[in-house]
Amino acid sequence: MYELGVVYRNITRADRAAADGLAALGSATVHEAMGRVGLLKPYMRPIYPGCQVSGTAVTVLLHPGDNWMMHVVAEQIREGDIVVAALSAENCDGFFGDLLATSFQARGARALVIDAGVRDVKTLQEMGFPVWSKGISSKGTIKATLGSVNIPVVCAGMLVTPGDVIVADDDGVVCVPAARAVATLEAATKRESFEGEKRARLASGVLGLDMYKMREPLAAAGLKYID
Amino acid sequence: MYELGVVYRNITRADRAAADGLAALGSATVHEAMGRVGLLKPYMRPIYPGCQVSGTAVTVLLHPGDNWMMHVVAEQIREGDIVVAALSAENCDGFFGDLLATSFQARGARALVIDAGVRDVKTLQEMGFPVWSKGISSKGTIKATLGSVNIPVVCAGMLVTPGDVIVADDDGVVCVPAARAVATLEAATKRESFEGEKRARLASGVLGLDMYKMREPLAAAGLKYID
Amino acid sequence: MYELGVVYRNITRADRAAADGLAALGSATVHEAMGRVGLLKPYMRPIYPGCQVSGTAVTVLLHPGDNWMMHVVAEQIREGDIVVAALSAENCDGFFGDLLATSFQARGARALVIDAGVRDVKTLQEMGFPVWSKGISSKGTIKATLGSVNIPVVCAGMLVTPGDVIVADDDGVVCVPAARAVATLEAATKRESFEGEKRARLASGVLGLDMYKMREPLAAAGLKYID
Amino acid sequence: MYELGVVYRNITRADRAAADGLAALGSATVHEAMGRVGLLKPYMRPIYPGCQVSGTAVTVLLHPGDNWMMHVVAEQIREGDIVVAALSAENCDGFFGDLLATSFQARGARALVIDAGVRDVKTLQEMGFPVWSKGISSKGTIKATLGSVNIPVVCAGMLVTPGDVIVADDDGVVCVPAARAVATLEAATKRESFEGEKRARLASGVLGLDMYKMREPLAAAGLKYID
Amino acid sequence: MYELGVVYRNITRADRAAADGLAALGSATVHEAMGRVGLLKPYMRPIYPGCQVSGTAVTVLLHPGDNWMMHVVAEQIREGDIVVAALSAENCDGFFGDLLATSFQARGARALVIDAGVRDVKTLQEMGFPVWSKGISSKGTIKATLGSVNIPVVCAGMLVTPGDVIVADDDGVVCVPAARAVATLEAATKRESFEGEKRARLASGVLGLDMYKMREPLAAAGLKYID
Amino acid sequence: MYELGVVYRNITRADRAAADGLAALGSATVHEAMGRVGLLKPYMRPIYPGCQVSGTAVTVLLHPGDNWMMHVVAEQIREGDIVVAALSAENCDGFFGDLLATSFQARGARALVIDAGVRDVKTLQEMGFPVWSKGISSKGTIKATLGSVNIPVVCAGMLVTPGDVIVADDDGVVCVPAARAVATLEAATKRESFEGEKRARLASGVLGLDMYKMREPLAAAGLKYID
Repeated sequence: MYELGVVYRNITRADRAAADGLAALGSATVHEAMGRVGLLKPYMRPIYPGCQVSGTAVTVLLHPGDNWMMHVVAEQIREGDIVVAALSAENCDGFFGDLLATSFQARGARALVIDAGVRDVKTLQEMGFPVWSKGISSKGTIKATLGSVNIPVVCAGMLVTPGDVIVADDDGVVCVPAARAVATLEAATKRESFEGEKRARLASGVLGLDMYKMREPLAAAGLKYID
Repeated sequence: MYELGVVYRNITRADRAAADGLAALGSATVHEAMGRVGLLKPYMRPIYPGCQVSGTAVTVLLHPGDNWMMHVVAEQIREGDIVVAALSAENCDGFFGDLLATSFQARGARALVIDAGVRDVKTLQEMGFPVWSKGISSKGTIKATLGSVNIPVVCAGMLVTPGDVIVADDDGVVCVPAARAVATLEAATKRESFEGEKRARLASGVLGLDMYKMREPLAAAGLKYID
Repeated sequence: MYELGVVYRNITRADRAAADGLAALGSATVHEAMGRVGLLKPYMRPIYPGCQVSGTAVTVLLHPGDNWMMHVVAEQIREGDIVVAALSAENCDGFFGDLLATSFQARGARALVIDAGVRDVKTLQEMGFPVWSKGISSKGTIKATLGSVNIPVVCAGMLVTPGDVIVADDDGVVCVPAARAVATLEAATKRESFEGEKRARLASGVLGLDMYKMREPLAAAGLKYID
Repeated sequence: MYELGVVYRNITRADRAAADGLAALGSATVHEAMGRVGLLKPYMRPIYPGCQVSGTAVTVLLHPGDNWMMHVVAEQIREGDIVVAALSAENCDGFFGDLLATSFQARGARALVIDAGVRDVKTLQEMGFPVWSKGISSKGTIKATLGSVNIPVVCAGMLVTPGDVIVADDDGVVCVPAARAVATLEAATKRESFEGEKRARLASGVLGLDMYKMREPLAAAGLKYID
Repeated sequence: MYELGVVYRNITRADRAAADGLAALGSATVHEAMGRVGLLKPYMRPIYPGCQVSGTAVTVLLHPGDNWMMHVVAEQIREGDIVVAALSAENCDGFFGDLLATSFQARGARALVIDAGVRDVKTLQEMGFPVWSKGISSKGTIKATLGSVNIPVVCAGMLVTPGDVIVADDDGVVCVPAARAVATLEAATKRESFEGEKRARLASGVLGLDMYKMREPLAAAGLKYID
Repeated sequence: MYELGVVYRNITRADRAAADGLAALGSATVHEAMGRVGLLKPYMRPIYPGCQVSGTAVTVLLHPGDNWMMHVVAEQIREGDIVVAALSAENCDGFFGDLLATSFQARGARALVIDAGVRDVKTLQEMGFPVWSKGISSKGTIKATLGSVNIPVVCAGMLVTPGDVIVADDDGVVCVPAARAVATLEAATKRESFEGEKRARLASGVLGLDMYKMREPLAAAGLKYID
């Protein structure tokens, strides 16, 4: 249930270093480090591959077929932010294109995460502006109805509060609550630090069965080998 | 409701210059210039990214699992045409591959737009033959049932009349009625001409709120800023 | 109906030369050569484009949200195998990432075909490990429940028996029963041998209508040309 | 491609007797009698079971989330009409409820076929006003944008011209072009007349294999029986 | 982002009279009275038709394939509550059947709203226990993982806070924030009070065009009648 | 991978008493008793509510848009059988209507389970012939291509072997392998026998938390109550 027609100008952004540092760890590791919560639905896909970003969320609530509030949210963007756009009802029109991307980029936005469609995808790739969206559509939108900016929104099934950290890459989009950003960075970094050694051992032919000592619990669970 | 078993050999193609010129403007601008109508459903996606084409439609009606008429339509292709293939019922088999593409290309076709599946996508990309389709499937088709060529068809929810202009790029596929092609080119070119200046201003940090003079109507609509 | 908690260590793999040779022909030609059966549902897509492989199937049955058996199947992989992972119920979590891929690659696996999601797709592409999957998701899995290895499984709607040949490329994934591998290779090679000449003729402007002698049967079926 | 903002007051309705008589035959038989064309996509479902109607189409083109034109089309309804509502883009809001149904019923409409959502379904059933729709939604619509009335529309993938006959029942919705209504009624009645005898024979245990003399063609096609 | 493993025993329920009174108005009128917000996604459907209820939400967060917390939430139910069950990831297993329904009913629950599947639907109908769900499935669940009870949850795309009012009928499910329940009841009752008179006028053949004085704004918007 | 063009006349049906007795227990209890395997995908829905049947499977493999083999399978039906129809590729046409139902019923079939569409649903309900299907469609089929009868098939994602027991009701469709029918009946009956007492206790207000002794494991898992 959304409050309509309001713009919150002052939001508490997550710790900057944590918000910046989570990108390198990627959405899968961060999701794991959070205890496997916080993932937006997997239909959210990058419009072109290879981007990996993190930043603080500024949120915007839009109505189907109407992108008026995208111009309102632009003014609230600060360096290091990621715009998270939610819809009041399902819609896949093209709410965002190269002009808005130019404006968002000029204001310091690192990316857009939108539970709807976008267009000008070729130009967006040339500009290097990453977008995770539900779809792609040439269909433009009108500018007629008020939504809100920087209220908590539900985007692709996940509650996103302004100031939370968004981590997005080819695997998906994760939302880390601002209050947990620092701890999540630590936990994720710790997870990551073990990966190099594990990878080397697996590459040498060691089996996960042995490396993770799974043979005993598998046998205990009743696994039978048949020759 | 379709007339079956007929091939119309003489169709009135849209103005050549307009049909050729619309490609450069792209599907989003053209769709906008048309008053936001004419877009095929957004599930129509390019099989590889980066193509941007326009051309005159020759149409073909196919039946599920049967691509016989694709050979019939090949003969009706002229230089600068785009083949638009509709289905009499939903189906996603692979109706089109590298051999048909070779033939279409040899006859002068610029692209295929098909409300079904295609295959040999890697080879099609190597050949540089663009396709917008509903899906990709290895499943071939038989050659047993008559459809029609150059009748008006419903393709991905849009009525396409032979001779209409098709504009397709990474954002989607738009159909411009032949009678409106010249006017649409003008309107779209005009829209486009404003974009460069707008982009420069937005890139310099000017907000859409100010550039489009939105602050007053937003306030009038009741938008409230909260610090 | 699946037998749970068992690992069959000895499976009869298809003829090696046939299993290796089918890759070059591609899924569409192989599917055609089989009489148009054996295709997994077309929602199975490569996580990155351009791969074309074939190999012998080792199978694994997984439960939703649980990838424990992926470590068990790793031990059963031999050089030239492709792991085929089926689910006991629909699920699209990320069952597989770069660590498992490192292990699979070290054991000689050529690819993974999984009726679920995977993650670390950027790294998988850098490693050159091909995957065909139903989706992509950051969401990891637990290791708690027994499935089985090397039992016949239904993967994306197709029954795959351990030792069958899997052929996968950008067009999709086909399963060739072990007993038919050699004959299918022959039939597919024969089909392929005609393609070069056909392509040359079509490229020169000859119509399929004439090359395939379709004009007469089309007329017999009642096709009418209208000027 | 739609003409917007127009209401055609004079349309040529199909032959009354044919338009009325087709209901009794049902959508499946009529579809068969038409040569298996004319069916709207099967996602069009009755909002309550047991209705079987036919009538002449008056059409309306709506925009997503806007039902203004439903009031405009109401005035064009004559006794025996069925309103066919198409959308300019996909949308499943509730465009129609008990008040509009009261008005439509008072004007003589027999049913609504709408490629979108409706609401007040319980009251609609109590009123005995049949609706075939894409979905059900409480979400109301606004009244802001012009569509058109009595232009040819694409509804659920099928082109419907004002005056065509619509036949709808629990199996689906079929559109019969006005010009073919009489012939279709004849053909469908003929088909139907054979059904009683066939049913009696099948009920007595006679097999379709024998009644339709299929054994020989099946054997010719290569069917093998294995004991 | 959810807090896991907690049960809030004390929640502030919406005003009782408002929570009870909203049922009679139905989801469509309530949604309208709220300014067209608060609707759960329309895939939420009653498992049998004809129910119309309202009540105060007690919430539960479940994990895919695990209904352990359903037993925990049962204890928190008070007379007049509706259980709202959200999932941490998409899943459509059968989380709820006749035994849990017996328990919920005994504790005073009026209905279940669940973003997943249920089973025993025939018995649930015989018991008169209404359920709105995403689907129906025989597939049972395990009891292994902690979720939470009475935390704010996202159910079918809508944020539901414990104590909010849920209004559900054949048209869908609406969530009314506790703080707005009384005002919404007033607004909805007011809307409803006009309906009887409107219905009578429309039934007598008066057009909405005239009753709502739409002819002038339609003409102003450019609507043209063509004879 | 299917063998085409064959009809197996002699199949080993499951124990008659078990095949008949499983109906009373319902798909949910049977699925549970099997260890939660054997369920067809939940998109398989009854075309009308309230049926609960079990019987021995005779299987048929059909091709998209072609129901020729339905007449072939009719001859193989014996009293107490349920026909299970699989498709070689996804399709939702209406493969089955009242005439075939009359024939199936005359031969002793109890129901049809089909991974495609059917039609004449109103008549089928009047006849009392139960069908579980993927959809409903007026679109008829042709009779042109050989499939097979009584081979193992994959129907809605589940492998069904001729002679297996099918249990179907409003909750879904379960396949019990012939060899496990007797044991499953026993296990399911045992489960069922406990349900009456449980229901009585829950109805009296006893909580599952206490009846199933869940409080301790919940606390051990870390559940916290907050007042």
